[in-house]
Order: sequence, then structure tokens, then C-alpha cells
Amino acid sequence: MLVTRRIDFSASHVCRVASLGDAENIALFGPEASPNGHGHNYILEVTVEGEPDPVTGMVIDLKKLKDILEQEIVQPMDHRFLNKEVQPFDMVVPTAENLAQNIWDRLEPVLESSRTSLSKVRLFQTSDLYVDIVRNEEQQ
Amino acid sequence: MLVTRRIDFSASHVCRVASLGDAENIALFGPEASPNGHGHNYILEVTVEGEPDPVTGMVIDLKKLKDILEQEIVQPMDHRFLNKEVQPFDMVVPTAENLAQNIWDRLEPVLESSRTSLSKVRLFQTSDLYVDIVRNEEQQ
Amino acid sequence: MLVTRRIDFSASHVCRVASLGDAENIALFGPEASPNGHGHNYILEVTVEGEPDPVTGMVIDLKKLKDILEQEIVQPMDHRFLNKEVQPFDMVVPTAENLAQNIWDRLEPVLESSRTSLSKVRLFQTSDLYVDIVRNEEQQ
Repeated sequence: MLVTRRIDFSASHVCRVASLGDAENIALFGPEASPNGHGHNYILEVTVEGEPDPVTGMVIDLKKLKDILEQEIVQPMDHRFLNKEVQPFDMVVPTAENLAQNIWDRLEPVLESSRTSLSKVRLFQTSDLYVDIVRNEEQQ
Repeated sequence: MLVTRRIDFSASHVCRVASLGDAENIALFGPEASPNGHGHNYILEVTVEGEPDPVTGMVIDLKKLKDILEQEIVQPMDHRFLNKEVQPFDMVVPTAENLAQNIWDRLEPVLESSRTSLSKVRLFQTSDLYVDIVRNEEQQ
Repeated sequence: MLVTRRIDFSASHVCRVASLGDAENIALFGPEASPNGHGHNYILEVTVEGEPDPVTGMVIDLKKLKDILEQEIVQPMDHRFLNKEVQPFDMVVPTAENLAQNIWDRLEPVLESSRTSLSKVRLFQTSDLYVDIVRNEEQQ
């Protein structure tokens, strides 16, 4: 059984490869390369796999899950400029793909337990663009 | 090919383990344990797997699917207090997980045919919390 | 990793099997068989699988993906009457299932590259009905 919690956070970023010039970055990233950065209201869906406890009927304590997402993702990322304030995005381009991978890496060890594991991370950068990381692919 | 129909229904519930006291239930379930119960507008997505009929181009007759969901889920659950009016929730805590499992158990035999099978049930309890039951996991 | 782009287009269609009469078509398709046709605002989600480029952090150039969807789907289908203006729907009933399959067939060869492949097509005909075609099933 899969339980999914949705949260959101807002952050600024700019997508530029440091070794490339303005024209090449704009050709690669379009307006995402605009030097002063810009913001998105990211929506994050985190899916945990497990079986419901036979007494409580819960796969995971939802208050605990909310606390984990608040502590591991919202606190370090919300209202930050990712490239300037959140590692490794001083070195790594904060595309939706790289941000989703970083969120996966932050959450996976914390959500691993004898009863549950992280199954999927879905990150919406805008309402018409999202990235999924799924455990099966991750393990390949 | 997968065809998904979305419906909604409204119901009240309270999440409490009968053998535990107030403090323990509130520690487990938070406001979901509030004794008088409370309501949700549940949204249910039911996914059927099959191949389109070569003449009609349909995996399943959508009017028939709507009738099945109306009869098996909406009629027994809509505008009910789950713990008081819908079995087995007099005995089983109506968490989103247990409710999704019960919906799966109600629909699976009715949607099994030579051409189609139930592939997935997704139940939104709120806009930021949903539970999935997927056939592959179910069969393990 | 999976990257999904959402677009929309509006089109008219009518669902009728040519060899059947009015009563049989209405029994099969309900109001979808109404002879003058009717429109939907289709929403299409196209999912591409691949690994992010280690330098750019992108699975696929999103501007290029948008151009492909514009050229292969929006230009031929948007504001058209599918049965009259878009092949093969002069011969094939444009149910959501058949339309999703046609969209898959148009996109798959164009999105196949050494780095990416088409993973999933999801077509919403209305907000409460959608069809998925997923690569694993497609390949069986």
C-alpha cells in the first residue's frame, strides 16, 4: 500500500552552467538562465510504501511524516535562493531533475524503517512540468 | 491500457482504537480522533486495465463503470457516518488506508471480467493526502 | 527518472460505429454518440524516461519537448473535428482510448533517442476520466 503526502515550498533558482557564457546558457535553459534568478511554488508529493498496522490501520504516522518533510525539506529550502543558500546547488544546476534527486537523497534514509520505505518523489516545478523518481528505477 | 474514472463522496468518520483511552488515541491520530467525528469529501479514482474493443474502441462501458461505482461505493458510503453505518468500520478504524482497502475489496470481484480487471484504487482523504492500492502489490 | 510535460488542446468528436444505427450507438456511447459532435478540452501528459545529463542536469531539453508536442499533437489536432479532419478518425472511433493510442504512436518514434524514451501518455478527456498508456504494457 502507498501513502502520499503533498507539501509545497517556494524557492528561487537560476539554471546556468558556470563554464558556459550567457548565450550558451540561454540556448540551453531559456528564461530559466536569467541571471538574477526567479521563483517557483514547488509542489512535492512524497510516497511511502508499507502495510497498515493491524491495530491502528496506519502505514505511517502522518504527523511524523509531516514533521519529517517540514524538517528535511521545507526548513532548508522554503524561501531560499537554492543556488546561494542550499547545498549542493552552489555547484550543481538546480533543475527540477537535480532538485528531485536531492530531495530523494535527503528523505530516503529518514523514511527507511522496518515497516516503511520511500517509494516515490514527485516534484512539480510548475503546474505543467513535474519530475518523478521511483524506487524501482532508483535501484537499477 | 488503463482507464480511470474519478468520483467523490462525503462521509464522516472518527479514528479511534476502542481499547485505548482518549490521550492515547489523540497521540496516535491527532484531531482525527475527535470523538464526535468529522467529515471529508473523499475523491476516489478507480483504474481498470484492459484492451480496447476493436470495434467500439472502449476498454469498458463507461456508463456501466459509473453505475458500478454508484452502486458499490456511493450508495453505501455517501453521507454516512462510516463507524456507525458502514461495515466493517464498527470494528475496523476507518483510516484512509483501511477505507481504500475496503473499497478495493468491494470493487475487485465486480470489475473482474474476461476483458478487464481492477488495476488501482486511489483514495484522496484531503487534497494533500492519498492512498494507492495497486494490483501488483496486492497480488504479492 | 521521469519528466512529464502537460499540454492541452480542444477538439470535437463523435463516437459512433458506422455499421450501427442511432439506437445502438446511443446504447453504446450515450451522449458521446450525438450526431453533430461535441467538444472536449483534452489535457495531455507526456512522460519521458532518461537520466539527467551530468553537466546540464536535464533529462531532455524542455523547449525541444514542447516544440515536439506542439508540432506532433497540437498543430494537427487543436480546434479540429477529429472524425472529419484527423486521420485515422475518419475510420476509427475517437474514444479516449483510441485517441491516446494514436498520440502514443505519433510521439514514440520522435521521442526515442539514445538518451530518452517515451514512458507514458495520459489523456484526460474530462476531469473525471483519463486513459494511460504505459511503456511496459505497450511492450508486452
